[in-house]
Amino acid sequence: MVVLNKIYTRTGDGGQTALGNGDRVDKFSGRVAAYGTVDELNSFVGVARLDAEGALDEALSHIQNDLFDLGADLCRPDMDKDADAEYPPLRMSATQTERLEGEIDMMNADLEPLRSFILPGGSRLAASLHVCRTVSRRAERMAVELASHEPINEAAVTYLNRLSDWFFVAARQANNGGKDDVLWVPGANR
Amino acid sequence: MVVLNKIYTRTGDGGQTALGNGDRVDKFSGRVAAYGTVDELNSFVGVARLDAEGALDEALSHIQNDLFDLGADLCRPDMDKDADAEYPPLRMSATQTERLEGEIDMMNADLEPLRSFILPGGSRLAASLHVCRTVSRRAERMAVELASHEPINEAAVTYLNRLSDWFFVAARQANNGGKDDVLWVPGANR
Amino acid sequence: MVVLNKIYTRTGDGGQTALGNGDRVDKFSGRVAAYGTVDELNSFVGVARLDAEGALDEALSHIQNDLFDLGADLCRPDMDKDADAEYPPLRMSATQTERLEGEIDMMNADLEPLRSFILPGGSRLAASLHVCRTVSRRAERMAVELASHEPINEAAVTYLNRLSDWFFVAARQANNGGKDDVLWVPGANR
Ligand code: B12
Ligand code: B12
Ligand code: B12
Ligand SMILES: C[C@H]1O[C@@H](n2cnc3c(N)ncnc32)[C@H](O)[C@@H]1O
Ligand SMILES: C[C@H]1O[C@@H](n2cnc3c(N)ncnc32)[C@H](O)[C@@H]1O
Ligand SMILES: C[C@H]1O[C@@H](n2cnc3c(N)ncnc32)[C@H](O)[C@@H]1O
Ligand SMILES: [Mg+2]
Ligand SMILES: [Mg+2]
Ligand SMILES: [Mg+2]
Repeated sequence: MVVLNKIYTRTGDGGQTALGNGDRVDKFSGRVAAYGTVDELNSFVGVARLDAEGALDEALSHIQNDLFDLGADLCRPDMDKDADAEYPPLRMSATQTERLEGEIDMMNADLEPLRSFILPGGSRLAASLHVCRTVSRRAERMAVELASHEPINEAAVTYLNRLSDWFFVAARQANNGGKDDVLWVPGANR
Repeated sequence: MVVLNKIYTRTGDGGQTALGNGDRVDKFSGRVAAYGTVDELNSFVGVARLDAEGALDEALSHIQNDLFDLGADLCRPDMDKDADAEYPPLRMSATQTERLEGEIDMMNADLEPLRSFILPGGSRLAASLHVCRTVSRRAERMAVELASHEPINEAAVTYLNRLSDWFFVAARQANNGGKDDVLWVPGANR
Repeated sequence: MVVLNKIYTRTGDGGQTALGNGDRVDKFSGRVAAYGTVDELNSFVGVARLDAEGALDEALSHIQNDLFDLGADLCRPDMDKDADAEYPPLRMSATQTERLEGEIDMMNADLEPLRSFILPGGSRLAASLHVCRTVSRRAERMAVELASHEPINEAAVTYLNRLSDWFFVAARQANNGGKDDVLWVPGANR
């Protein structure tokens, strides 16, 4: 169980910190950067929720909860030793990505296909969802970089990849079903 | 022509992706990070536009369109082979930076020179433009890092450099012509 | 004294720039990335202030001013030569971190301890403060990375570490004294 009471402990002032298994690493290590970026993404989802309602807001709350599961997964290295742990570490499961896919399919069914990129923005909700989209892609880049150095749970990376597509489709939906989206005109101002 | 319909393809789940010329690279490669950060910047421009009107909003729409030209430029390596391509790849041109310079000069003409940095913020529009300013500087750092490894179009980097100055001047304009800007007082709270 | 008048000088178009002591370095160097990220953080503090009032807004204004002191510190390498400088370079002092600690203690006194992480978000102010929290942690990662290559003022890193804890506690305060915070439920959607 995670306990937060005193909040600052000064133990990280020297630039090192602890992973979920107690290992101490540099704060700029790839693993800390990966879950730190997931935490940053989660904060932008919190901003998007200020303008979300109903089913979309609920879906975003599930995503926020998932992102802590993802952080819990990333903060525990040595997946191969999971079986020996007293309590099994929490890992992302493929079902979480499948839920996103189902939601994408449903949202996308109502949208016209596009023949160009769309300018990110429009309604406040759409604009915030585009921020989430691009920050989730940044988080994905960090997770993939980490995965190139040490084994990590594949489901964690897959989730982040699908998540940015989820945000894209949700952003279009938040622009009057995509009808208010403005297309990129290549080279229009050259 | 760019076509977006199914949105998720699962082809990138393994951590690699395609550039504009079809080459497959790691998602954390410098080139993908550079245009990914330009995309993130574009999303924050979308947020700033929520509070922009008239000429400023129009100028921001041109910048958003330019940023996709910039993405198209960055996603196509091997500039030296451009002449052989069936359709000439889209590249940033110096005229796009010149347009920014003209707009900076016009906006700056009405502002008092400063004898210290200004605290970013003020009106909602100014605050958002400062976010754009600092994220465009992050995008510039990524583009310059890429340019240190492989040749890229100089006009792309120049554009990003000028763009952050554009956002600075626009942010001041959005604070009552700079009159509401608050100056940094070095060491005031030491 | 910092003077800002013409704003764009074109001298950085080639990808290099000047530090506070005149040294020219690559824009993607660790030092420029560190103070550039502090500047980005400062912009998000400007966004948070749009929804802050009274004592909290004032505390945020002190933080914004401190962040320029921090930038001034980071932009001057060669701390060991400070004594020889005509004017002593501005450096962060431990008292700035101590001020944050006092404020954290005061804010935290009114909050219930937590048995799980909280979903970032809630009120608009809380949501923005969580963005500041996670971006200050990104700035801290950059500063610590720089410190692993060259000596920097320890007080600069300590300040950033405490600052993210400050934002956490302030965000809870901005959610009805923490009563509106929603807890992470590990694995709830697996
Ligand atoms: C990694 C980490 C983070 C990461 C990622 C976490 C994530 N899940 O996304 C991020 C970046 C989000 C983070 C943020 C913060 N964190 Co943090 N974080 C941790 C760390 C190292 C691990 C937490 C974790 O997720 N573990 C994985 C989960 C699943 O593990 P678990 O809950 O312990 O469950 C396991 C076991 O307990 C066991 N188990 C489960 N149930 C039961 C029941 C019984 C009976 C038993 C015996 C065992 C058991 O099985 C589980 C699976 O292995 C902890 C330190 C620690 N080791 O707890 C600090 C820690 C909790 N964080 C801390 C702090 C301060 C914060 C921040 C406030 C920092 C900030 N200023 O931003 C924020 C708060 C964020 C928020 N919104 O609430 C402090 C709290 C200090 C305090 N006591 O007040 C800690 C203790 C670190 C420290 N020493 O400073 N954090
Ligand atoms: C690089 C890239 C990006 C980058 C940068 C792009 C930029 N311009 O800024 C960024 C990060 C922005 C991006 C984002 C996204 N992308 Co993207 N992107 C690409 C990629 C690889 C290249 C696009 C590009 O800009 N090309 C440069 C332009 C100028 O080239 P062009 O339009 O093809 O024009 C050339 C030729 O077609 C030719 N030509 C022009 N006119 C004509 C006419 C004729 C008749 C002929 C023969 C030739 C011709 O000449 C031109 C110059 O060479 C494409 C894949 C691809 N190869 O198309 C995916 C692709 C379009 N993206 C895709 C997706 C899903 C997205 C996102 C939704 C991802 C996300 N979740 O965020 C977002 C959407 C963003 C938005 N706001 O709409 C998918 C779409 C899948 C689908 N079919 O639904 C693709 C197909 C990749 C894939 N296989 O998954 N993307
Ligand atoms: C590092 C830096 C930054 C960093 C960090 C700065 C920080 N403090 O956080 C960041 C990223 C924030 C930044 C941002 C910007 N910057 Co800048 N920045 C600088 C740089 C290199 C150093 C500034 C600094 O902080 N110095 C430390 C302080 C304490 O030093 P100081 O004020 O000079 O004081 C020392 C001495 O002057 C002396 N001293 C003090 N008092 C007195 C009195 C007397 C009588 C004497 C003799 C001496 C003396 O003692 C002090 C201690 O050593 C300057 C160039 C330069 N060398 O001045 C450019 C510079 C000021 N920036 C510039 C620009 C354009 C910007 C931006 C607009 C860029 C952008 N588009 O975002 C923004 C504006 C931000 C804002 N909100 O206002 C330009 C201004 C051009 C112009 N003339 O118009 C400059 C001149 C660089 C350039 N040549 O292009 N910047
Ligand atoms: C749509 C296009 O976006 C690029 N792409 C794929 N994944 C990422 C990511 N995490 N960050 C930035 N760009 C990415 C690829 O070039 C893809 O084809
Ligand atoms: C105003 C000051 O900002 C710094 N500077 C120049 N370009 C960037 C960038 N892309 N990111 C961060 N800082 C930068 C230099 O130190 C310059 O002098
Ligand atoms: C609360 C947890 O957050 C992690 N942690 C500590 N410092 C940072 C940082 N700058 N960025 C991201 N994560 C960090 C550590 O794992 C710590 O235990
Ligand atoms: Mg993808
Ligand atoms: Mg510049
Ligand atoms: Mg800390």
